[in-house]
Amino acid sequence: MSSSQVSSAIHQQVKQAREASLVLANLDNFHKNKILHKLAEALRENSVVILAENARDMTEAGTMLERGKLSVSARNRVLLNHAKIEQMAQNCESVAALQDPSGKIIQATRLDEGLDLYRVSCPIGVILVIFESRPDVVIQISALALKSGNAVILKGGKEAQNSNSVLAGIIRDTLAKSDNALENAVSLAESRDEVAQLVKMSAELDLIIPRGSKELIQHIHKNAEVPVLGHADGLCHVYLDQAADEAKSIEVTLDAKLDYPAVCNAAETLLVHQKYPNQWLAEILRKMQEAGVELRVCRETRKRLERFPELKLTTAIEEDWTMEYTDLIISVKSVKSAEDAVIHINHFGSKHTETIVTENSQLAEWFMNMVDAAGVFWNASTRFADGFRYGLGAEIGVSTSKTHARGPVGLEGLVIYKYKLYGNGQGVGRYGHGKRDFLHEEIT
Amino acid sequence: MSSSQVSSAIHQQVKQAREASLVLANLDNFHKNKILHKLAEALRENSVVILAENARDMTEAGTMLERGKLSVSARNRVLLNHAKIEQMAQNCESVAALQDPSGKIIQATRLDEGLDLYRVSCPIGVILVIFESRPDVVIQISALALKSGNAVILKGGKEAQNSNSVLAGIIRDTLAKSDNALENAVSLAESRDEVAQLVKMSAELDLIIPRGSKELIQHIHKNAEVPVLGHADGLCHVYLDQAADEAKSIEVTLDAKLDYPAVCNAAETLLVHQKYPNQWLAEILRKMQEAGVELRVCRETRKRLERFPELKLTTAIEEDWTMEYTDLIISVKSVKSAEDAVIHINHFGSKHTETIVTENSQLAEWFMNMVDAAGVFWNASTRFADGFRYGLGAEIGVSTSKTHARGPVGLEGLVIYKYKLYGNGQGVGRYGHGKRDFLHEEIT
Repeated sequence: MSSSQVSSAIHQQVKQAREASLVLANLDNFHKNKILHKLAEALRENSVVILAENARDMTEAGTMLERGKLSVSARNRVLLNHAKIEQMAQNCESVAALQDPSGKIIQATRLDEGLDLYRVSCPIGVILVIFESRPDVVIQISALALKSGNAVILKGGKEAQNSNSVLAGIIRDTLAKSDNALENAVSLAESRDEVAQLVKMSAELDLIIPRGSKELIQHIHKNAEVPVLGHADGLCHVYLDQAADEAKSIEVTLDAKLDYPAVCNAAETLLVHQKYPNQWLAEILRKMQEAGVELRVCRETRKRLERFPELKLTTAIEEDWTMEYTDLIISVKSVKSAEDAVIHINHFGSKHTETIVTENSQLAEWFMNMVDAAGVFWNASTRFADGFRYGLGAEIGVSTSKTHARGPVGLEGLVIYKYKLYGNGQGVGRYGHGKRDFLHEEIT
Repeated sequence: MSSSQVSSAIHQQVKQAREASLVLANLDNFHKNKILHKLAEALRENSVVILAENARDMTEAGTMLERGKLSVSARNRVLLNHAKIEQMAQNCESVAALQDPSGKIIQATRLDEGLDLYRVSCPIGVILVIFESRPDVVIQISALALKSGNAVILKGGKEAQNSNSVLAGIIRDTLAKSDNALENAVSLAESRDEVAQLVKMSAELDLIIPRGSKELIQHIHKNAEVPVLGHADGLCHVYLDQAADEAKSIEVTLDAKLDYPAVCNAAETLLVHQKYPNQWLAEILRKMQEAGVELRVCRETRKRLERFPELKLTTAIEEDWTMEYTDLIISVKSVKSAEDAVIHINHFGSKHTETIVTENSQLAEWFMNMVDAAGVFWNASTRFADGFRYGLGAEIGVSTSKTHARGPVGLEGLVIYKYKLYGNGQGVGRYGHGKRDFLHEEIT
């Protein structure tokens, strides 16, 4: 295909997605849930064909692995089986069970007798989601998009293209069976070229959610003319204050580093007040070392730990404070005060999740106010930063941007609002100096 | 200055704004209001020096006008006088009187005994506002930024540079007198080069609000790597349904076109149902014509109005449906149905404000749901789309984007939220299969 053919095909796809989004936006919760339940059924019924397509991907992934073009973990993420298909089906059912985020009256104001203003939540419209490897993301995202009333264009990784394609086909069939006008509410973008064009279509596309590598997300941020929701980094800190409790320090720090080091809400840097007991610090680091963690410490920390020769310490360099290891490595820095900890965090942190361990409640409150991050925790592991743990029901991603939605983003992040004004034939010319005044009363 | 010098000066400015923003974010409402009242006083006390600096701009603006580099209306917008300074002072006082949008608990969830999650509104951080001509915008934006707890970098037009500079100086002095650490919460960007660099600083800047010409806003959207809040177009429609009331049709349509044709919420296109009485349509257009409006009608409309030779009609071309005239021109199109009106609006509209005139309440509700716009009105003029009229108290701008804030944006659009988690030393390792379950209870 020539580039202009690609371009016109994409415009057609986005236009169809837009049309479907307008129909979907006005489906009530009952009908949206019915589709989600039908989708769960369809997934179970089509498990054989899903697994067959997945097997094709796995063969291809094996070849890519041999050629060094895919990592073992990336290949493993492509794999589907009966249990995973059942999980996908259950995912649809649990999204159906969530509250409809759309159509809620957020605010109601009587501007005048017979002139009522309502601010009502509504879907955003057409969303592009870019993701890697795991084909079950197709179902997860589509279910959230349907429930919130948005059309979605999905771009998955090449390594799962057959799986993604069969899953998207099942969703589109289910939509079409409910209403032909809904079929295009979910579609796949095929190529990188297509994505490169989509991210520039600010008039046609409403939001981009990139999920995947830091490089991918940074690339999208740099090139997109459409709003982007997501996070590139998760450089989270644990600050152990001089007034910290020993048991709390240990559980919070070890959990934050060890529970799942490969993810964005794991801790990367430990900040330790100079008066925090060295004995306790040594105990925490010894446990980390036993769990296989490499300890990169500042000079001051090394000095504090001289009496603990069993600890294998390497000296941290400046770059360690900027590194999201997502691995069994931790950097440790001594700080003179909570102020210094906050300055370090606000300078090096990724605005994701930051925690203080202290028994000083006033200091904790101050820390939580002064630290500029989506999540600010007191005596709790950074790993709690997660849509399921927060009780959001489902998560479309985690946002470190500071507009629209921040932190773990659930269905609520997929809606915006519109103002509905119910009048009686009024023009603004009736109001103003020497004329009528506005009431601006809340409607209850 | 070399470009690297410019660059390092800007980084310094943004860094200082960030530092000030963190202090400002934690000022309580009482202290923020105190600063706003002091600022009002300072404006009144410094009126002589403000007017002197403004006089320098007016002299320069006169020269620019002679050379054709500035329009008469742009020059007039630069002019300040005692009444306008008093208005600015009152603006500070009225912003002080508004509710603090920051620090509100939006949601509170008990994740477990001793593990409480609060979603609390907080300032966005550092905002760049770009505007043209009117120096009073410096005070208006700064007052809203202070009240919401955000630091702001302002870039005004060259034609008002001395006025902008003296006003920013007064704000900075007032801030410094309250607390030295606050001085840099407001600063001016001096050059276009500076703006070109600022819009790329996604790690340092949180939001850009461009106000001004369509070209300026489109340029920012295209080049920014930082989220942008604003609107480029205001192409609003009035749809007269077959079930419309005569008096309501007349008031809504005339008000929407004539009350203030130069602004974004004025109507540009009138859509008329084929069964809407021709007599009424002719009456509306006659009144428009008398007010100096040029009438550009579709062929079908021309046919409908054959019996009204007093109407001077020109034939609309395709481009008329895409034009934001912001002038005494209206395009008129006959449509076969409300569906056709909605299709036209969703295709050509700018997602700003759209209104239907009808006595059919079911159809009105359907229209308001199906039309994809920030404001959807029933029997009311599009001109009501305004922060003051909506009762928002103050307006930072109007957004046609579909994330973060939509429609007229008040103080609420200048805040986001952070999640505060109050724990007791927990790690996530305590929860899961065969372990503790989350409670996820609403805290009331």
